[in-house]
Amino acid sequence: MIDVIVLGAAAGGGFPQWNSAAPGCVAARTRQGAKARTQASLAVSADGKRWFILNASPDLRQQIIDTPALHHQGSLRGTPIQGVVLTCGEIDAITGLLTLREREPFTLMGSDSTLQQLADNPIFGALDPEIVPRVPLILDEATSLMNKDGIPSGLLLTAFAVPGKAPLYAEAAGSRPDETLGLSITDGCKTMLFIPGCAQITSEIVERVAAADLVFFDGTLWRDDEMIRAGLSPKSGQRMGHVSVNDAGGPVECFTTCEKPRKVLIHINNSNPILFEDSPERKDVERAGWTVAEDGMTFRLDTP
Amino acid sequence: MIDVIVLGAAAGGGFPQWNSAAPGCVAARTRQGAKARTQASLAVSADGKRWFILNASPDLRQQIIDTPALHHQGSLRGTPIQGVVLTCGEIDAITGLLTLREREPFTLMGSDSTLQQLADNPIFGALDPEIVPRVPLILDEATSLMNKDGIPSGLLLTAFAVPGKAPLYAEAAGSRPDETLGLSITDGCKTMLFIPGCAQITSEIVERVAAADLVFFDGTLWRDDEMIRAGLSPKSGQRMGHVSVNDAGGPVECFTTCEKPRKVLIHINNSNPILFEDSPERKDVERAGWTVAEDGMTFRLDTP
Repeated sequence: MIDVIVLGAAAGGGFPQWNSAAPGCVAARTRQGAKARTQASLAVSADGKRWFILNASPDLRQQIIDTPALHHQGSLRGTPIQGVVLTCGEIDAITGLLTLREREPFTLMGSDSTLQQLADNPIFGALDPEIVPRVPLILDEATSLMNKDGIPSGLLLTAFAVPGKAPLYAEAAGSRPDETLGLSITDGCKTMLFIPGCAQITSEIVERVAAADLVFFDGTLWRDDEMIRAGLSPKSGQRMGHVSVNDAGGPVECFTTCEKPRKVLIHINNSNPILFEDSPERKDVERAGWTVAEDGMTFRLDTP
Repeated sequence: MIDVIVLGAAAGGGFPQWNSAAPGCVAARTRQGAKARTQASLAVSADGKRWFILNASPDLRQQIIDTPALHHQGSLRGTPIQGVVLTCGEIDAITGLLTLREREPFTLMGSDSTLQQLADNPIFGALDPEIVPRVPLILDEATSLMNKDGIPSGLLLTAFAVPGKAPLYAEAAGSRPDETLGLSITDGCKTMLFIPGCAQITSEIVERVAAADLVFFDGTLWRDDEMIRAGLSPKSGQRMGHVSVNDAGGPVECFTTCEKPRKVLIHINNSNPILFEDSPERKDVERAGWTVAEDGMTFRLDTP
């Protein structure tokens, strides 16, 4: 069994974004036609008791408060969180680590590049590596996600590189092949994928999606020039390291023949019209078989 | 006039703290006998329209959502926030800066030590200094808080050093005299103080409090060995850089003759019994003339 909780479904900045009065953000703020969403993160478990967090969003403190499965019970201090797996070093994927201070043991996993970005920022020393060991992920190799008591969780993780870009604050250092990851998690029977950022859908990614049972995929933008056309930013989706949902080469097109998995869009930017519940774009993606992720959604892959 | 909104009233970790099942945190989580609080921050304004944020807590995104006065209206992007003033470089005072990314101009003010700590962490480069200028505070000198349009806000800020300690993640670098600040803000008529962390109450601090109209003071712990006795941490209040509310040399005792100001405890740790609404300690501090800060509380100092 794999249980999944969507802790947050929005891209960096969240929905609404702090400084935005664009129509989507106003709708989310006033709860009229669009639901607010915190920044993207998943909780994953094989037993419904011990959880692994995929990306530590800046909203993690609030996400834990809103998610009873992640509340500690019993002794004075503790957590059902066994580990955190990072797909990249972007602010919206790592800032929540600063919430997980307070000398609480868990395992922190990420690529060499991402762990190096943490090491380059002394503030993350608040998570003492003696208490929160930092474990580099070996790409394309299945590793058992271990509970804190040393017993295998029942989940196997395979991290793989996907086209992306360096974190905004580290762009000057240039691009590294392991800077953006996809994660494949299996209980040996069913498989889920988490690919919240992806600049290009390769044939390898299509193969992985076709074989999976549940896929959370980069839903940042509807179209590549969306931010530019809306007057929100000079940056294209490609410049930000994201393929766009409805463009040629995007997930709707590329995964159209992948009929096995449940397909979910996550890491959705506040400019994306699929966030409006009644928009034509929302109807389009739903008609194409996609679910638009919301905070608090749960998914279960049952072992037959 | 000075308007103040308490954006958050809790110490680092917030209330409840993510990994705590101590009685206070359970009470806050279940809303039985104690109100939840986000991490300490104030918003201050001379006109109720343009605001300055004192400390950028990790909860700042949620705090802005919960505070209509801080919502931008009108154009696509913007903010009523004119500037952010930091009292120290602790995680609970600076992490919220990462929420204020998105190329939105405002002024960032802090001591040389605190600005150096930001510079030592490239992640804060997400706030491009070309867009968010970093202005070192000159201690003990009144400076006009300027709105973004270059017009004085009507508020004068004086920052002064108080006994404290280096941020947790920078303790190895040793202590610096300007690492912990108190802030005095006046409209030329009324004066408020913000001293969320203070390891020792000096005669200078007593003089400032006696002359002020509104004081927000370090309410981290009730007694110095509170965390140790509760089995929560091996650290004393002194080790964490905080004088304790009810100890000899604490604010209740030292400011007992300061009858002019309204006195408010802020930056309250989740172990502090004053967070229980019906506790004897809560009654004690209220009887001594103190208010225990809550998120969303507002204060106004009127100019006669």
